[in-house]
Amino acid sequence: MSKQTPRTLSGFMELLPPAQQQMERMMEVLRRTYSLYGFTPLDTPVIESSEVLLAKGGGETEKQIYRFTKGDADLSLRFDLTVPLAKYVALHYNDLTFPFRRYQIGKVYRGERAQRGRFREFYQADIDVIGDGQLSILNEAEIPAIIYKTFSTLGLRRFQIRVNNRKILNGFYEMQGLSERSGDIMRTVDKLDKIGADKVGAILVDDLGLSREQSDEILRFISISGSNDQVLSALSGYAGRSPLFDEGLSELNSVSSSLTAFGVPAEHFAVDLTIARGLDYYTGTVYETTLLDHPEIGSVCSGGRYDNLAEFYTDKKLPGVGISIGLTRLFYVLGEQKMLNPDLPTAPADVLILPMTEDLSAAIALATSFREAGIRTQLHCEQKKFKQKISYADKLGIPYVIFLGEDEIAGGIVACKDMATGEQSKLSPADAITLIRAGLAEKNSGAVILG
Amino acid sequence: MSKQTPRTLSGFMELLPPAQQQMERMMEVLRRTYSLYGFTPLDTPVIESSEVLLAKGGGETEKQIYRFTKGDADLSLRFDLTVPLAKYVALHYNDLTFPFRRYQIGKVYRGERAQRGRFREFYQADIDVIGDGQLSILNEAEIPAIIYKTFSTLGLRRFQIRVNNRKILNGFYEMQGLSERSGDIMRTVDKLDKIGADKVGAILVDDLGLSREQSDEILRFISISGSNDQVLSALSGYAGRSPLFDEGLSELNSVSSSLTAFGVPAEHFAVDLTIARGLDYYTGTVYETTLLDHPEIGSVCSGGRYDNLAEFYTDKKLPGVGISIGLTRLFYVLGEQKMLNPDLPTAPADVLILPMTEDLSAAIALATSFREAGIRTQLHCEQKKFKQKISYADKLGIPYVIFLGEDEIAGGIVACKDMATGEQSKLSPADAITLIRAGLAEKNSGAVILG
Repeated sequence: MSKQTPRTLSGFMELLPPAQQQMERMMEVLRRTYSLYGFTPLDTPVIESSEVLLAKGGGETEKQIYRFTKGDADLSLRFDLTVPLAKYVALHYNDLTFPFRRYQIGKVYRGERAQRGRFREFYQADIDVIGDGQLSILNEAEIPAIIYKTFSTLGLRRFQIRVNNRKILNGFYEMQGLSERSGDIMRTVDKLDKIGADKVGAILVDDLGLSREQSDEILRFISISGSNDQVLSALSGYAGRSPLFDEGLSELNSVSSSLTAFGVPAEHFAVDLTIARGLDYYTGTVYETTLLDHPEIGSVCSGGRYDNLAEFYTDKKLPGVGISIGLTRLFYVLGEQKMLNPDLPTAPADVLILPMTEDLSAAIALATSFREAGIRTQLHCEQKKFKQKISYADKLGIPYVIFLGEDEIAGGIVACKDMATGEQSKLSPADAITLIRAGLAEKNSGAVILG
Repeated sequence: MSKQTPRTLSGFMELLPPAQQQMERMMEVLRRTYSLYGFTPLDTPVIESSEVLLAKGGGETEKQIYRFTKGDADLSLRFDLTVPLAKYVALHYNDLTFPFRRYQIGKVYRGERAQRGRFREFYQADIDVIGDGQLSILNEAEIPAIIYKTFSTLGLRRFQIRVNNRKILNGFYEMQGLSERSGDIMRTVDKLDKIGADKVGAILVDDLGLSREQSDEILRFISISGSNDQVLSALSGYAGRSPLFDEGLSELNSVSSSLTAFGVPAEHFAVDLTIARGLDYYTGTVYETTLLDHPEIGSVCSGGRYDNLAEFYTDKKLPGVGISIGLTRLFYVLGEQKMLNPDLPTAPADVLILPMTEDLSAAIALATSFREAGIRTQLHCEQKKFKQKISYADKLGIPYVIFLGEDEIAGGIVACKDMATGEQSKLSPADAITLIRAGLAEKNSGAVILG
């Protein structure tokens, strides 16, 4: 028979088992952390009707969308988790209780040009809080706490959550009489990190037609920096000239002042006026999260406050705040940077039981009792040489091997080998369980990411 | 602005938050149980190249496949998890260690005609053990133990794992000189439950051209029933006439005899000669699992032993054994039958904290300490009347509400209301954590499914 060469599509992540175990650990941390903050899990379809998914229309992403027909239906794969959330909330509005807090970790699809580290199928891990008509500023204040808890639980140490408020920016441009051009200006200013102040100034003057004075004023404003208190204090110098600015400053003060109570250390948080987020729908606090030692990666967790989640589906005003982690890309980058903890077990089992007798019932009963005790156990009964069986445990990184021969069965004991130390001990099954549990607790105690 | 009516595609399950929480519990049980038996999690792409996914070609499912082009690429959504596994094992053969044990819980796609309880996007939850060239019968014997553990942990009581062996069937047809027609015969016999012995006999004689005698012999054979020992004993009467039959009987004896050591009670297991599984690639033990009170649902967990997982991709002989749960359909059926435990918490949070002061820092600090203690906590700081806030907890089923006013803050205590009993107590935050943890342990102690 002629064979089809097996391959996986370019831009689609498919991990080997040890890496998959690390990914699962990351996902488990996200699920647990989001749950601790009172977010409920959601799972929406990967496929939606194109007219529903693309109700907003246009946009740069449209070309990238996986769109196709099946029978009469015009279908598309979701390209983010926000549009499906908007649809969900509008569709199930009467069955939901607001504020509605949900998390979703799911695959999304974008047919980007394939290149290293870019994915066409990738996980996003999102949380959003949606209000019905109104939403307290506390929700915006809580987001940095969730980001902090998430990344510190994952093991990261050197990261910073950068926060700004769109009302401060919009208010500032209002003061300068530049409200109508604030979108273009912010998109330009957003490039500051990449192209530098001189080039930003040149674009503002040459391309956007601002005066040199206006351009300088803008560059002066966004270069305000220092400690959070210093930045907030410098901002207060602009107060009283725009109600919008003042509202934004008050919100930023609220967000900033509650961080201690939320347990976020000051060094993990920075007010940063250069952050605007490209998307037009953000209207209040905006967030980015950067790895201090890897600024080249860009933001690993971003989001913000918006006023109208579902305006394309409903007249209901549904303000919200949310953040998103691009999990597949983050995982890829962490791998590239050798930041995934190699000491955590990635084996499929904690214990490999090697029966040394023809009759397997004692070995099976032992495996059953280990599993009852919560120990991940594999029986190895293949027709292989003893050495090959040990090598099997070794290759997979299974931390413990149990030998069970006539003598052990007769004596009611097991021979347990710690594969890391090579130490072998004969002990009762109950003591073996205690020993293995203690060893596993230690082996599993580290975090996924090397901070 | 004109609105797009939000809708979810027909045949795509989209759950409300309480139902989603139940689904998550089921998935968590599956992940944990599969892990206990030494299976490693895998995650393969939803999209594959059509030539790879459809290498086997033809088949009834081909019409149902979501197939489309993106640029030059001919793509398809996976329609099961077995073909992607075959591709994975063939592609990564050199990086895997055999026997390779993996589980995968993922969405698959089939464009079936939409009808109640039929899904176009649905979860399958699969486990497979793949050997390199050979695979011990123990793996086939272990499968019923995994099925038993899975369903009993989910809470089911009245279910039965039905087992047969294809070698017994093929050997029997060999004895009758009917080897070449055994496929057609088995497909007919498979309908026994639905159409009865008379009609099966009629098809065998009229359509397949068997003699009345052969037909009677077949019907006599597949009607062998009784306790497992009775069936095995009746089968031994056919021994010695076909090596294939004898091999199958020996395997069936092995599987059956190890059940006690695996902890599977006899009443959950039955040797059933009518089970053949339609698919041609099964070659040894085959499994079905039925709910005793709902035979109309059919099998909720099926699978078997096969000799050649990846024959379309590689010359390597990769025998295996696996089972699959159609999770979305099972969840749907359990819901319809009111078998999902309504007493388990489905709220997004365990505790709702209601701050009664302007300054929120004490409430925030309390929420932070609760979360550190592993309690899922939501702060409710919206501009709402007190009654509305209580009603919020009530609607969501949040089991505990904490009030924090001036007096409580001054006294270093909290007021904690148990929403189920209405009981309210004033106690220290530490005591509140103890109280809530104990309450949650009890509330969460039940299984997902009502047996």
